[in-house]
Amino acid sequence: MAAPRPQADGEAAPGPPGCGEEPGGSTQASHRLLAYSDALLSIIATVMILPVAHTKIHPDQKLGESVQQLLLTKIAVYLMTFLIVTVAWAAHVRLFQVIELIDDVLALLNLACMMLITFLPYTFSLMASFPAVPFGIFMFSTCAVVIGLIQAVIVVYGFYHPYLLNRQIQVSENQAFYKHHILQIILRGPVACFLAAIFSFFFIPMSYVLLGLVFFFPHIARLIIWCKTKIVGPKEEEEPHSLESFTFYLSEPLSKDRMEAFSDGVYAIVATLLILDICEDNVPDSKEVKDKFHDSLIEALREYGPNFLAYFASFVTTGLLWFVHHSLFLHITKATRFMGLLNTFSLAFIGGLPLAYQLTSEFAEKSHNEIEAIQVSCVITFFASIFQFAIWITALFHERETLNPLARYGGSEHAFMFAKLALYPCVSLGAFFLTCLLSEFSTAIFHIMQIVVPFAFLALRLLVTISLVVIKSILSLSRRKNVVLDEEETCLSPAETLS
Amino acid sequence: MAAPRPQADGEAAPGPPGCGEEPGGSTQASHRLLAYSDALLSIIATVMILPVAHTKIHPDQKLGESVQQLLLTKIAVYLMTFLIVTVAWAAHVRLFQVIELIDDVLALLNLACMMLITFLPYTFSLMASFPAVPFGIFMFSTCAVVIGLIQAVIVVYGFYHPYLLNRQIQVSENQAFYKHHILQIILRGPVACFLAAIFSFFFIPMSYVLLGLVFFFPHIARLIIWCKTKIVGPKEEEEPHSLESFTFYLSEPLSKDRMEAFSDGVYAIVATLLILDICEDNVPDSKEVKDKFHDSLIEALREYGPNFLAYFASFVTTGLLWFVHHSLFLHITKATRFMGLLNTFSLAFIGGLPLAYQLTSEFAEKSHNEIEAIQVSCVITFFASIFQFAIWITALFHERETLNPLARYGGSEHAFMFAKLALYPCVSLGAFFLTCLLSEFSTAIFHIMQIVVPFAFLALRLLVTISLVVIKSILSLSRRKNVVLDEEETCLSPAETLS
Repeated sequence: MAAPRPQADGEAAPGPPGCGEEPGGSTQASHRLLAYSDALLSIIATVMILPVAHTKIHPDQKLGESVQQLLLTKIAVYLMTFLIVTVAWAAHVRLFQVIELIDDVLALLNLACMMLITFLPYTFSLMASFPAVPFGIFMFSTCAVVIGLIQAVIVVYGFYHPYLLNRQIQVSENQAFYKHHILQIILRGPVACFLAAIFSFFFIPMSYVLLGLVFFFPHIARLIIWCKTKIVGPKEEEEPHSLESFTFYLSEPLSKDRMEAFSDGVYAIVATLLILDICEDNVPDSKEVKDKFHDSLIEALREYGPNFLAYFASFVTTGLLWFVHHSLFLHITKATRFMGLLNTFSLAFIGGLPLAYQLTSEFAEKSHNEIEAIQVSCVITFFASIFQFAIWITALFHERETLNPLARYGGSEHAFMFAKLALYPCVSLGAFFLTCLLSEFSTAIFHIMQIVVPFAFLALRLLVTISLVVIKSILSLSRRKNVVLDEEETCLSPAETLS
Repeated sequence: MAAPRPQADGEAAPGPPGCGEEPGGSTQASHRLLAYSDALLSIIATVMILPVAHTKIHPDQKLGESVQQLLLTKIAVYLMTFLIVTVAWAAHVRLFQVIELIDDVLALLNLACMMLITFLPYTFSLMASFPAVPFGIFMFSTCAVVIGLIQAVIVVYGFYHPYLLNRQIQVSENQAFYKHHILQIILRGPVACFLAAIFSFFFIPMSYVLLGLVFFFPHIARLIIWCKTKIVGPKEEEEPHSLESFTFYLSEPLSKDRMEAFSDGVYAIVATLLILDICEDNVPDSKEVKDKFHDSLIEALREYGPNFLAYFASFVTTGLLWFVHHSLFLHITKATRFMGLLNTFSLAFIGGLPLAYQLTSEFAEKSHNEIEAIQVSCVITFFASIFQFAIWITALFHERETLNPLARYGGSEHAFMFAKLALYPCVSLGAFFLTCLLSEFSTAIFHIMQIVVPFAFLALRLLVTISLVVIKSILSLSRRKNVVLDEEETCLSPAETLS
């Protein structure tokens, strides 16, 4: 699960295995550390949806208003956590693309870093509950600065023990430059946070602007460069050749393996959080069963029927969106930064699915909020799936670098991939419009729709296979006719020549 | 992340790559499906600790009694879920050791399987709340039977499309036998569950015995075989040679990669569940801050000081236990079944750490339960770490097969590994005895102890390194003296011959 190394031509040819390495028992491959960090980061990014989903909404209150009053701060906490954790994750990916082997000290430093990252959601909760008090923003900024410092220590430690480094950097002569470059990348965020911490005491809005910059700056910078190259044209020739392979390396897209691992974590935690609610809310009380249902457990459980339906429907949706993501990334050979950004957005909406579950299962019987709950679910599913679709479209623009030949225009999987990715946007849009048209539309119908979707997948597969077989057999039939005709001609021609 | 293939001598030499394979776009490597399944299964195994941890215990009530009354059923649900999920996980590992490539149909079938597995905790909740009603046990058994059937369909589908299979089975002539063998392994549990479902209607204790068998049967069978071979001696010669390589393959230990992935999931979810509680319980109310603390947020947060301390201490404990596990599995080359069982037990206690956090943070101020809460924490930490230690001891008994040379007796990492593994059992035992001796012992001291432990790790490392350097320098000094003496002798001897 090592980061894919760029195939640079010049000095970057990796040395023979074992070169410059001290094969002590203390030096270790980093893949398990990275897998564990990915799991931690993806769970912490997603888990903050739980306080959103668990907010009790009074049945008499209108959902639209409740969302504004109760949920808005919690949703803000969730989104901020999600975005900041993805930024921290991206920095972590970069860091361990440079440092490829670890030892005990690095493992412990990394754990310290993770501990502070898992504490970030709490600082956001403070910020959301007390937006006018500087302490929350100060606490968050302090955490971010300490995280940055620990990562800087990791870098310095890595360059002090060069056998831990990426082989390309190990054999190069410009180690000092590389060190400064990676330190710069890692400390950019913490410096902004440090400024935010200072500003928090006398001008809070400036702090928020600075924190917003931490997330958006890399993408804005990227956009400006992209616009420049579009208008002025590329001027890559000016850069000195010896540095080019490295700058290429660090502006290299994030490792696809780690992007998959992070996404898997998000999908897995979303799929499993659902059962927690079922287990806490929907186990009937033994007294109630005795008094109300004459000791019949099955009668009591019948009450919860809609919740079970909602559970299975939500699981099916999460599972299938994972399946689409899985199929998509099977065909992607390299993910660009922009595709990474789209993936982050898609995952942020995936993280919102527990809220969709909670709303549709809670308002299953209470009709005046039912339609709105379904609409919220449709919107969440639509955005989660449309961003997946956007990843594919983006990939198609650079299909030679980013896509497997099978999924490019004209490839055998192209049409099928298109259909797979278009399925959920269509289904969710369709359901949304049905809620506007039909007053009879209910959560039960919506959940059954969700459960039926995988069969649509299979039917799609079958349809494509059958039509391919039919097309093939028609083609082979027409070919055989041609062959027969040809043979008749060739049979005829010697006869003709004979006669 | 493919399962390690045994190096069988006979017919099992794997065919050339690509042999017998249909390289269609629909056939995929299974590693990501397995990573996702591992994440799902590990989270679902662990997440049922939350209802245990969230049980509100009245401060006036004695903790010992509350545990008996309130927590016992919930702890039972947690343990049953954990054990059954590990059984399902083991079957899943076996299954995908046989089927090495997947396609869309298998991916969807696997998701259906996962959906039913995530539903199992709910059936346990029913069983624990209504132990005398057959419906809970019937529901669980039905789920288990359906899971078994889906897995059987996966096997049949795999053998119908042989290019999906493990290469060793693909090239063999005994495919039919292999199919029956793997079906037998997979359906053993569901058959017991089917019987349990039938018995649930007229004799419930029998159902529980049958369900217990599902977990313990493989280990009991293993123990009997082991005792037999100890008493009678091995009689492996009797088996026909052509089958031997395969039976070896299936009685092969579980894939080490997947064991690591499953463990990582458990450690990650435990480490992140903690922040949920902090975010939900410890954000002060804005009204309260105004009335009680004169608008000073910092004053209000000072109230929660012990909780933050408890949070960081728990994170440090979880993180370091992961670190020990990581170091341990770095030195393990192959994990036997018994080591897998010990790992399961260790993880079950790791999953109990959120309970330890909750108890120690809740009773930080209420003195008469404080000591008991610390004792429960010590017991959980002790068992989690002692089972890790047991894994290593077991590995040492078969050190040639299971351990890296560095960690065997006399290896350079042996003593250090021993120290690492012994640290937590010693610390937790020490803390436990301190609670008995000192009446002044408090949760604050306990948490500070927990936080100090990583520095003990680093100090240990430093100590070992320094003592090694000292020993080396002493050795080299004494050697140099010898060399000098030798040189003097050799210098002397030609002179002697000259004179």
